[in-house]
Amino acid sequence: MRIVDVREITQPIASPIRNAYIDFSKMTTSLVAVVTDVVRDGRRVVGYGFNSNGRYGQGGLIRERFAPRLLEAEAKGLLNDTGDNLDPDRCWAAMMKNEKPGGHGERSVAVGTLDMAIWDATAKIAGKPLFRLLADRHGREADPRVFVYAAGGYYYPGKDDDALRAEMRSYLDRGYRVVKMKIGGASQAEDRRRIEAVLTEIGSDAELAVDANGRFDLETAIAYAKALREYPLFWYEEAGDPLDYALQAALAEFYPGPMATGENLFSHQDARNLLRHGGMRPDRDWLQFDCALSYGLCEYQRTLAALKVSGWGWDRCIPHGGHQMSLNIAAGLGLGGNESYPDLFQPYGGFPDSVRVEDSVITMPELPGIGFEGKSDLIKVMRELAE
Amino acid sequence: MRIVDVREITQPIASPIRNAYIDFSKMTTSLVAVVTDVVRDGRRVVGYGFNSNGRYGQGGLIRERFAPRLLEAEAKGLLNDTGDNLDPDRCWAAMMKNEKPGGHGERSVAVGTLDMAIWDATAKIAGKPLFRLLADRHGREADPRVFVYAAGGYYYPGKDDDALRAEMRSYLDRGYRVVKMKIGGASQAEDRRRIEAVLTEIGSDAELAVDANGRFDLETAIAYAKALREYPLFWYEEAGDPLDYALQAALAEFYPGPMATGENLFSHQDARNLLRHGGMRPDRDWLQFDCALSYGLCEYQRTLAALKVSGWGWDRCIPHGGHQMSLNIAAGLGLGGNESYPDLFQPYGGFPDSVRVEDSVITMPELPGIGFEGKSDLIKVMRELAE
Repeated sequence: MRIVDVREITQPIASPIRNAYIDFSKMTTSLVAVVTDVVRDGRRVVGYGFNSNGRYGQGGLIRERFAPRLLEAEAKGLLNDTGDNLDPDRCWAAMMKNEKPGGHGERSVAVGTLDMAIWDATAKIAGKPLFRLLADRHGREADPRVFVYAAGGYYYPGKDDDALRAEMRSYLDRGYRVVKMKIGGASQAEDRRRIEAVLTEIGSDAELAVDANGRFDLETAIAYAKALREYPLFWYEEAGDPLDYALQAALAEFYPGPMATGENLFSHQDARNLLRHGGMRPDRDWLQFDCALSYGLCEYQRTLAALKVSGWGWDRCIPHGGHQMSLNIAAGLGLGGNESYPDLFQPYGGFPDSVRVEDSVITMPELPGIGFEGKSDLIKVMRELAE
Repeated sequence: MRIVDVREITQPIASPIRNAYIDFSKMTTSLVAVVTDVVRDGRRVVGYGFNSNGRYGQGGLIRERFAPRLLEAEAKGLLNDTGDNLDPDRCWAAMMKNEKPGGHGERSVAVGTLDMAIWDATAKIAGKPLFRLLADRHGREADPRVFVYAAGGYYYPGKDDDALRAEMRSYLDRGYRVVKMKIGGASQAEDRRRIEAVLTEIGSDAELAVDANGRFDLETAIAYAKALREYPLFWYEEAGDPLDYALQAALAEFYPGPMATGENLFSHQDARNLLRHGGMRPDRDWLQFDCALSYGLCEYQRTLAALKVSGWGWDRCIPHGGHQMSLNIAAGLGLGGNESYPDLFQPYGGFPDSVRVEDSVITMPELPGIGFEGKSDLIKVMRELAE
């Protein structure tokens, strides 16, 4: 068996929203297909992948370096020992040949996107849902029930507190019990007013997390911490620059509640630095590394190994990105849950059509691969690329 | 005045060499031109830039995001207050619009390459060598004399100790008094033999630095440190993964001599983390951040500001990359020197034709801009792109 083609198309996932750092008016994603010559259930096996929102599609890098390396590698060198399936780690090594260490951005997205498609193909060839394949490989029992929370509360032109409250209410109506909103894109007084409006709206029906998207310097992060600690928040996310570990460590002095960060750290080395230098607390804080932006699941497993070395449970991970890939990792390897954007970045994000959110938990269907075939709007654009 | 065009071409800088991490058989660079409508000395002013070796050309990202943002920005917003020249920081802000924090790789190269061209154009429009423009802006006196060392000693097929010695001798013959060779791509015993061969060859005529290119884990880095500290080396470079600050800090316990690192840290946040967490010693160690890979000179000035906050002198910086851009920064802002690859990556690296290395020092000629017009083989390929 072999990989016969690798395709990429860059698609808009633009929306009029903004967070404290960027607007999404020109946001794109790369949709990729890894086409094999294997047939299952009368159909050629094609693995699909895409990157999470926020870091743009990677058509250039995929075409310049990573797809050619996969296609030019000796076919056998990409397979497992018995030669009957792809070996994702060997595919990963082929893609990363002649890449220097350090500099983990952009290429981490290109490789993460292709890695998703490779794992999708691998699980389809094995005839298993990816989460079951993963659990088997790690000698664990899969748990198809995964915690999910609703990420939204973006800023956009003309959005007032009533609109924000209605948005949050709609997430509750759809079964979520934890919701998230953006902060740091307005004055602190305005953000407090927005937070209080949402807390009033959700009452005891749900909990609220807030996300500053790395906007604050140390003084502002501390000022917000002092204000936010008066509210019963689910977490205070990405206060400062994602690489400012000293800021993160200093914040713990001012904020006793849970904090979350990591969505903009794209390698196991960067993740390890957060654990070593960021003062994060393994009994309450959350880690949001997103494999689709971070060299994929092969690398994510190295990140999980680094967590183990540092004494962190894998259940402290709730990845960024809202994609089915991380749902599979959560169900297969016991992560704490996954992000979800109920109204954004469609058709890429979200769940298979049959899945319902109940009490902020979804149950994974038993679909071979990552499960894209169960989401009709998504598999339609995927098949347009490669089938 | 305005920017009328931004051009990019990806060119091979392939060579049969390898370091401990990668081979350079498919290495490329992006050559870019920022074309203005300003005329100086009867010629349209075009700024040129290229990226350093090791991280590949960035045609995809430049075309997808960074060149369009420059060309779509309001022309006035890219100029200084008097409107008679570009403002590199405003150009930088336009390029980085809607880019999230963190993830400093690849795009840092794309932006660094364009930033080089923007500074070249800015200094040409001002009618000054870039190093004098920079010194003026910082209220310093420029020193056109810059320390340079010869980087080589790569591994390549069939290269024996005699060839290595002859290579090093040739650098001495060309005026260098510090030479550098690769380690970590062979066994420790073999590397010791290679080092001793070179030390015998250069005797008291020169000093030797060694470079592991981030290859070693902690145990190997320590084992090498114990062996290397017996030699009078100029420095021990990039022992471990560039982001493994804890490894770097641990090494100081075993290696009292000078160490050097930083060429694979591509933002001021990453550089600051090295200073905060890497245990580097401001009285003897060297910092090798390379602006061409790291969002350019606008960002490099933020890195220098972080050095000041941490108590480091700018003369502890000897950048990676061997390009005239860093020569200008060294001469203008008092860095400790610059890398040079006498036999590699031509025509991009090296000096203007009139420049000679004497006692490992070069003297900057008084050419407007970065000085590419003084290097005939380089300006020829540059003008083919845009003039």
